[in-house]
Amino acid sequence: MKLESLNDLYLTELKDLYSAEDQIISALPKIIGKVQSPGLRQALEKHLEETRGHVARLEQVFEMSGQAAKKQKCKGMEGLLDEGDELIGKDATPAVRDAAIIAACQRVEHYEIAAYGTVRSYADQLGLNRASTMLQETLDEESAADQKLTSLAKQGINTQATRTA
Amino acid sequence: MKLESLNDLYLTELKDLYSAEDQIISALPKIIGKVQSPGLRQALEKHLEETRGHVARLEQVFEMSGQAAKKQKCKGMEGLLDEGDELIGKDATPAVRDAAIIAACQRVEHYEIAAYGTVRSYADQLGLNRASTMLQETLDEESAADQKLTSLAKQGINTQATRTA
Repeated sequence: MKLESLNDLYLTELKDLYSAEDQIISALPKIIGKVQSPGLRQALEKHLEETRGHVARLEQVFEMSGQAAKKQKCKGMEGLLDEGDELIGKDATPAVRDAAIIAACQRVEHYEIAAYGTVRSYADQLGLNRASTMLQETLDEESAADQKLTSLAKQGINTQATRTA
Repeated sequence: MKLESLNDLYLTELKDLYSAEDQIISALPKIIGKVQSPGLRQALEKHLEETRGHVARLEQVFEMSGQAAKKQKCKGMEGLLDEGDELIGKDATPAVRDAAIIAACQRVEHYEIAAYGTVRSYADQLGLNRASTMLQETLDEESAADQKLTSLAKQGINTQATRTA
């Protein structure tokens, strides 16, 4: 498909995000299974639920553009999840593994912050106000998830990982 | 290598970043060659120069930990750059391609924002104050580069991409 307009690029980016969210839903349960900290586990379980909501929102956003929701393999997310899987799979103490899980998940969150920021600004430019509002809602949840991970790291998990030295 | 302490994880993450920066330095000239907007080209050329400085800073940070600078293939960055290459290589009008280049580069910037935020907070936790200061300097430059791309998109490139519709 030739990208002849911002609308074409918008739809391409939505397909990338639809694939990214799907990959996250597949990967998160395995990651959650390796968490030691109850607070971190709870935060990731909450985010898995939110992610299911992000998929539903994307389906509505596609519909608003008169398109069927469609995935286009998100190679960026594939690389991030492969890297995370390798890091989290290393032989590690439980506290260090929790810190590694936070590091991997924050990379995933930042991918989504960049990508939702992009499509939200395209929706603004294209005058798609309802879509923009929904994409902003997801963007806010991604930012909040990222901040929650930062606060879990700073308020205990990094300290615990240091103590296992 | 077993990850027995936060310091082990810190060194692992530095190696990942050292590889990521190296991949960016290889990829950026080709991306810059496809840019139409003089403002965007200038911003990316400036960031390529900054990226060389980030590599030099990482080498100093390794040295402060008594380690030789070493890469560990950053699969996350590899995926992001593959995805960007595919997007930017699509048949597109020049204005839409510029918007796509911004989208791809902001994903790269956000990877680095997440990763430098992580190693900076580990350096803080480990009492590595000089390393923390240097990593924060790079983090500030990555954030500024991301904001510059947002402002270029909003102040003209997305509008131009819409007009080509």
